[in-house]
Amino acid sequence: MKTQFPDDGLVLHTDAYQLTMMQTYFQEGIHERQAVFELYFRDLPFKNGYAIFAGLEHVLEFVEDLHFSKSDIEYMRSEPMFADDFVDYLEQWHFKATIRAPHEGEVVFNNEPILQVEGSIFDAQIIETPLLNIINYQTLIATKASRIRSVVGNQPLLEFGTRRAQEMDAALWGTRAAFIGGFDATSNVRAGKLFGIPISGTHAHSLVQIYRNDYEAFKAYAETHRDCVFLVDTYDTLASGVPSAIRVAKEMGDKINFLGVRIDSGDMAYLSKGVRKLLDEAGFEDAKIYASNDLDEETITSLKLQGAKIDVWGVGTKLITAFDQPALGAVYKVVSVEDENGQMVDTIKISGSAVKISTPGKKQVWRITRNTDSKSQGDYVALWDENPQKEEQLYMFHPQYTYLNKTITDFTARPILETMVVDGKVVYDLPDVQAVQAYSAQRLEHLWSEYRRGLNPQEYPVDLSKEAWDNKMKLINDVRDYVSNLKKDDDQKHGQF
Amino acid sequence: MKTQFPDDGLVLHTDAYQLTMMQTYFQEGIHERQAVFELYFRDLPFKNGYAIFAGLEHVLEFVEDLHFSKSDIEYMRSEPMFADDFVDYLEQWHFKATIRAPHEGEVVFNNEPILQVEGSIFDAQIIETPLLNIINYQTLIATKASRIRSVVGNQPLLEFGTRRAQEMDAALWGTRAAFIGGFDATSNVRAGKLFGIPISGTHAHSLVQIYRNDYEAFKAYAETHRDCVFLVDTYDTLASGVPSAIRVAKEMGDKINFLGVRIDSGDMAYLSKGVRKLLDEAGFEDAKIYASNDLDEETITSLKLQGAKIDVWGVGTKLITAFDQPALGAVYKVVSVEDENGQMVDTIKISGSAVKISTPGKKQVWRITRNTDSKSQGDYVALWDENPQKEEQLYMFHPQYTYLNKTITDFTARPILETMVVDGKVVYDLPDVQAVQAYSAQRLEHLWSEYRRGLNPQEYPVDLSKEAWDNKMKLINDVRDYVSNLKKDDDQKHGQF
Repeated sequence: MKTQFPDDGLVLHTDAYQLTMMQTYFQEGIHERQAVFELYFRDLPFKNGYAIFAGLEHVLEFVEDLHFSKSDIEYMRSEPMFADDFVDYLEQWHFKATIRAPHEGEVVFNNEPILQVEGSIFDAQIIETPLLNIINYQTLIATKASRIRSVVGNQPLLEFGTRRAQEMDAALWGTRAAFIGGFDATSNVRAGKLFGIPISGTHAHSLVQIYRNDYEAFKAYAETHRDCVFLVDTYDTLASGVPSAIRVAKEMGDKINFLGVRIDSGDMAYLSKGVRKLLDEAGFEDAKIYASNDLDEETITSLKLQGAKIDVWGVGTKLITAFDQPALGAVYKVVSVEDENGQMVDTIKISGSAVKISTPGKKQVWRITRNTDSKSQGDYVALWDENPQKEEQLYMFHPQYTYLNKTITDFTARPILETMVVDGKVVYDLPDVQAVQAYSAQRLEHLWSEYRRGLNPQEYPVDLSKEAWDNKMKLINDVRDYVSNLKKDDDQKHGQF
Repeated sequence: MKTQFPDDGLVLHTDAYQLTMMQTYFQEGIHERQAVFELYFRDLPFKNGYAIFAGLEHVLEFVEDLHFSKSDIEYMRSEPMFADDFVDYLEQWHFKATIRAPHEGEVVFNNEPILQVEGSIFDAQIIETPLLNIINYQTLIATKASRIRSVVGNQPLLEFGTRRAQEMDAALWGTRAAFIGGFDATSNVRAGKLFGIPISGTHAHSLVQIYRNDYEAFKAYAETHRDCVFLVDTYDTLASGVPSAIRVAKEMGDKINFLGVRIDSGDMAYLSKGVRKLLDEAGFEDAKIYASNDLDEETITSLKLQGAKIDVWGVGTKLITAFDQPALGAVYKVVSVEDENGQMVDTIKISGSAVKISTPGKKQVWRITRNTDSKSQGDYVALWDENPQKEEQLYMFHPQYTYLNKTITDFTARPILETMVVDGKVVYDLPDVQAVQAYSAQRLEHLWSEYRRGLNPQEYPVDLSKEAWDNKMKLINDVRDYVSNLKKDDDQKHGQF
């Protein structure tokens, strides 16, 4: 398969309906009309109080020079669902839209745009699927990582999930997202090469099995490496693994850095205490205990409460698959589109469920920070031409329960969406992943701890401006009128709003 | 990032400890000793009664011509954990091991090898991580797809998950795995191009939003496509969506294939009945109702029990992420290794948990089928030089509860592991994905329905041969002796076996 299409690209990594719709727009002659699409999710993952935006680097890599290759065109010609004139058009098409997004690592919330695409209907539509594919996953993992970091404190946190990740891209980009969310290193060597993430790893059970003896295996490892962490649970942690590690550490002395031992199975609370005792008795008080065994924020919290003597945490499956909620569920909706007269008209998607009704209009997200303590007071989602920075005071109200409201004075309003791509060209200088991680940690500092805690956090206010709210109500009413005019019978029990 | 390393390959898509162990083997001069590693999972996913093996094509693509590129070598030289002489060695290394596996689509079970690698310690070890990464995911998804297929019967089943998949590879290879497990088509166009999977899709809510009117949108679509499935829930399914679809279908007549309508939100049981009534009354009895809204085997079963009038099922998030169990948890263990005298010696990994003790020795899996009805009686995991085909009768016993046993006569024993790669070269002629899907369906026919049902299936027998069992007991005793000799105190409460 690899060599079947030497020019294979990623533009066809999209849902077929994006292309069939594009054919309609093309043949109807409206494909160059302008549209604004916004990407958002309705619910925070893991019942967390915030999310960490990740995926931007992959998105920018994806859109740059996006076009149909020769083999893409040939495939489309072979598909009866696509018309010849449409495929001719695709042959010369290049992506030319504008993309706005938060900085990667930004703290973001539900029901606010976390990415905005402005361009032709055509350009904005075709990238919907890959945008969601990338951002749904990476934002999910960065958020999960941030939850794990919050219970681990300042202890080292290692990402070990590649073998359990959902195929290769998830392992690679997932470990980058984990780093953004606060992990220190990864076992994935290619992630080290491509992103400059520190790599970590010493040996597996197989080393001990191949030497059929803990001591022989550790000794061989120590003779061929300076930094040593011995995996002590292949046969018997306390009777064989740790004593062998201590023996090798004593024999090798200064020839190695005896960093510590790793436990990968069994009762981690009990074993870690026994291991600590053995290490301390042998004079290795500085040797660390590494643990890795289906860990997540819940098991780590439990181990800490049990007084487990664990210094370094290796997290795999539960992080890299976001095991307790493996999909974020972000959506991508058109909020404004050019009409036949060249005017931008806002659009809405209606649902019987109030939270599923989209918010029309091109918008900006403003983070409102009180000047007295630089803590975030909430996000203020406003129509694009509004500018809350210019206001003396800001009236903020809950977009569903409008009687929940407050007025803010002496505040700073910071726009979250920044321009990353203009006319299909990346105009943003991507920071390295260390800078992204640092930015994220710094942003999190501005959140009250009540929003940051992992269990039952307070709901952070994400409010609509009065203008955005009024605009939404107007469009809901417009659709209600449209539907009422069509209704022929009145015996419906559902589907009304 | 894309252009940073034009020669970037995938060999570094592995855990760092594979490479640090390799450095030990290399510097100790044992890296060319032969070893046998086997890949297996301990528990069937989703409490299913079987799994569908998938991932082989990607594995074969991965190992072919596996080597370190110039930039890989440069990266390793920059990493202080790797020694110069070792990196020199890697520069000329090429993968040369032998791989045995089931045909893709094969029905497989827990606690039996579903892939075997034989070669130098070096070659067998470095591919552990990517093998697990690929097979864990694809086998999980093929199995999930098979569960969904089993409740859907013969109705069309469409994979719509790309936007919720865990990054791009998961979307691509996941939809291929779903096809193997019994899906009919995908929305992912690139999967259509690369694998020849039929693609499916018509339009999204955005089409209706852009025309701000169901009728106008459907009409435009109908004028630009022959096959039409209209999405009817943008504003109001029964009042606006379906009547508009009917109006367009009547106006267009034979100019289109009015295949049906799709519902993507709301109460699918209620709405589908209302939609059916409207379509039938308008004379469109043949038009199908497509449904897509967070479906899985459970919601589909529920909808069918409620008499929902759904003909075609689109499944996304819950399938492509294996939402209810997003990781399979397969492991890869060394079972035999060459010693200093050139003899192969079997090895074991011990655990306090009986099911986590590995089964030593190079093995073959034999599927035992009764000749009278060609139904599978169980799998018989035997040491490599055993041949149950030659036996008159076969004594099969449960590997944990050995008092559960039976004797089989008049049977056929079929080996499951076949040679796919020899000396690093693929020797297997990969079938296309349609053939893989057909093979899988045919293999499933040989399973009693008691093993196939989705809820509380019978446990399929996966038994060890007497020789394999005795070999395992011997190695457990060897390790017990080894540990006993080391034990200095007897106050341990855990970690014994």
